[in-house]
Amino acid sequence: MEIEIKTIIDRIEELYECGLQDDGSHTRMAFSQADQKGRDKFIGYFKELGIEPGVDEAGNIIARMEGEDSGLPAIAIGSHLDTVPDGGKYDGVLGCMAGLAICEAFIKNGVKPRHSIEVIVFTDEEGFRFGSGLFGSSAICGKDLGISESDPDIYGETRKAVMKPYGISLEKIYKAKRKADSLHCFLELHIEQGARLYKSQMPIGVVTSIAGVSRVEVQVAGEANHSGSTAMPDRRDALAAAADFIGKLPELVNQYGNEFTVATVGSIRVEPNSVNVIPGSCTFSLEIRDQDEQLIRLLEERSKSSIEETCGKNGCTCRFKNLSYHRPGPMTGWVAGGIERAVKRRGLPYLKMPSGAFHDSIVMAEVFPTGMIFVPSINGISHSRHEFTEAEDIKRGLNVLLEAVKEMDNINLS
Amino acid sequence: MEIEIKTIIDRIEELYECGLQDDGSHTRMAFSQADQKGRDKFIGYFKELGIEPGVDEAGNIIARMEGEDSGLPAIAIGSHLDTVPDGGKYDGVLGCMAGLAICEAFIKNGVKPRHSIEVIVFTDEEGFRFGSGLFGSSAICGKDLGISESDPDIYGETRKAVMKPYGISLEKIYKAKRKADSLHCFLELHIEQGARLYKSQMPIGVVTSIAGVSRVEVQVAGEANHSGSTAMPDRRDALAAAADFIGKLPELVNQYGNEFTVATVGSIRVEPNSVNVIPGSCTFSLEIRDQDEQLIRLLEERSKSSIEETCGKNGCTCRFKNLSYHRPGPMTGWVAGGIERAVKRRGLPYLKMPSGAFHDSIVMAEVFPTGMIFVPSINGISHSRHEFTEAEDIKRGLNVLLEAVKEMDNINLS
Repeated sequence: MEIEIKTIIDRIEELYECGLQDDGSHTRMAFSQADQKGRDKFIGYFKELGIEPGVDEAGNIIARMEGEDSGLPAIAIGSHLDTVPDGGKYDGVLGCMAGLAICEAFIKNGVKPRHSIEVIVFTDEEGFRFGSGLFGSSAICGKDLGISESDPDIYGETRKAVMKPYGISLEKIYKAKRKADSLHCFLELHIEQGARLYKSQMPIGVVTSIAGVSRVEVQVAGEANHSGSTAMPDRRDALAAAADFIGKLPELVNQYGNEFTVATVGSIRVEPNSVNVIPGSCTFSLEIRDQDEQLIRLLEERSKSSIEETCGKNGCTCRFKNLSYHRPGPMTGWVAGGIERAVKRRGLPYLKMPSGAFHDSIVMAEVFPTGMIFVPSINGISHSRHEFTEAEDIKRGLNVLLEAVKEMDNINLS
Repeated sequence: MEIEIKTIIDRIEELYECGLQDDGSHTRMAFSQADQKGRDKFIGYFKELGIEPGVDEAGNIIARMEGEDSGLPAIAIGSHLDTVPDGGKYDGVLGCMAGLAICEAFIKNGVKPRHSIEVIVFTDEEGFRFGSGLFGSSAICGKDLGISESDPDIYGETRKAVMKPYGISLEKIYKAKRKADSLHCFLELHIEQGARLYKSQMPIGVVTSIAGVSRVEVQVAGEANHSGSTAMPDRRDALAAAADFIGKLPELVNQYGNEFTVATVGSIRVEPNSVNVIPGSCTFSLEIRDQDEQLIRLLEERSKSSIEETCGKNGCTCRFKNLSYHRPGPMTGWVAGGIERAVKRRGLPYLKMPSGAFHDSIVMAEVFPTGMIFVPSINGISHSRHEFTEAEDIKRGLNVLLEAVKEMDNINLS
């Protein structure tokens, strides 16, 4: 039993075309027409296989291939089809196509696994539109998203309005929740983000955990004043205070973190933002990621102390607003172990590695036994039209996934 | 001969009303209907005095009161009526009203100075709309503004369109240029910006010079990348590089500058400005002001070196774009001396002080003998609806100006 690589490459191209925009960029943002077009195409592939996918109350597409013993919990495989603006061909798409390819391989070879297989396309993983993603996987896990139908997206449209064509209403979303014992395990194949595999020329990454993320908004308040007539000691410069901290952040990570710890100030805004006015306020985001929850908390505390110190030095005050927090998500031991055996059986070298980026797997791992497989991405690029993974690497990843499914299929838990 | 203070306070209030906006804020932005309303009102005050003001090719209002010897060059008094958005009652207005009050005092007392007096309202001093001001004074001094009629303002309107109702075209603006020997001197009364007088409880400031200003745009280029999957040593974080410098800037000023030296990063922009993406680029403004041209250049060089260093450390590159440069403008010795004698004659204490902020006087001083008088502003506030100067302080300032005009009138230069 081998995976047909040409078909999957062709389908990745077809999905890409669904997202091509008039300006040559590529976007299949969640709840967009392009996304719907991609979803319809994906559903079509399953229909060709004789499987009619369903769509749950959170808009997740679920295609089920019955196994020999339909009483057993299903092996789920999946990822997402939505992309960030100007995103690439592989992020998310590969994991969905992989599920399809596995079903196809079983069907075409006339082999039936013991467990049924469910391929899941999660809704709005990226969360670009409303600033918070993992929508579909959170619904399946019954996790409170803390969102509202009146939330505006980046274009000013409400969540209610954009979800309507998908038939989703937050009132009924609880129905998408799956019982913990309904899935034997969940497997996700994904391109790496960051260049660990690419740099070390390793074809496969077995993910050990997904980093937790703390996001805080820092608001520094100083006093806007004339840049020419306000002497340096009389200033309460909000940007000077913020910058003093931001410049020191890499040092702080170096001091307390490990090789996987990252901290980022990705967005910043000053008011009034004029060349000849001392910034009266500065608002910036602070994001900290690590595999260890305590380390995240430690770095957060140290950062806050450091910000308070630089604010004090600059006559400013500061406030912190927690934006979001996701616990680190360790992958399930027996699933990761099964994946490792699968890689070895294919005779491939591999890296055990954490994922710095989020995936639906971080949510799924809270409820279901979960494992992730990474394949290399040239230069580690993702979330960009430049993301590219060699067909050979895709093939290796798919065959490892197939072996892993067989491993899982042979495991009896109860 | 004393100045009638009640009339001038009433007129300042009337001008303020011309700028009141529907939302309760106050703005008489150059080339706006509110500005035109204020100008018409000001022209009306002169007509009541029997003087018909003219308007030159740069839109400057010039009201001339003939002196005994109309062959002598005129003593000019003036400032501007335009304000920044949400500006105050006094900045600029006081200097124009002072010119009016001086003429009124001479006329009502039946006294004629030897020199004619010209009261000048300069067009677009603030320059908020197009990002560069001192429009009218530059035209009078024949200074190349380096601007174009197609320049867009902050609302997207062209300079040509907004200047049209004022009858100004850049083609003919050269006609507004005045010969150096056409003015005996130029005097400007202004509220202080910064709180030196207010803090030291001094009623009068005699300005020694106006700080020069260098403005540079700094463009730092790094690489946008996923904040979760890009290890700290692999990053090329443009904001981290910029912040490292911005945080150190006050130290740099402290190291090389004097008590009047100031340096400011007032505006900053990062791309893509997203909480989970490492900033790929960061653009910020760097403004340096001092009385000493060499010190400005030294600080600029040290800043550039420091930026290059932090960029190097962060794997980024940088480019510098000169936005503007104004040389420091020392006030004219004999004019400042005359003002000092005038203050002493009124029996008032005073401070000799530089101006950190720009005024039309910095341009006028390049061509005409120029002097400036400051009066206190509560807490040093300017460019804000909160700016406030006590009537008593205005009265002292006006009487000093009147004495100064008499001093100037008695001086024969040739």
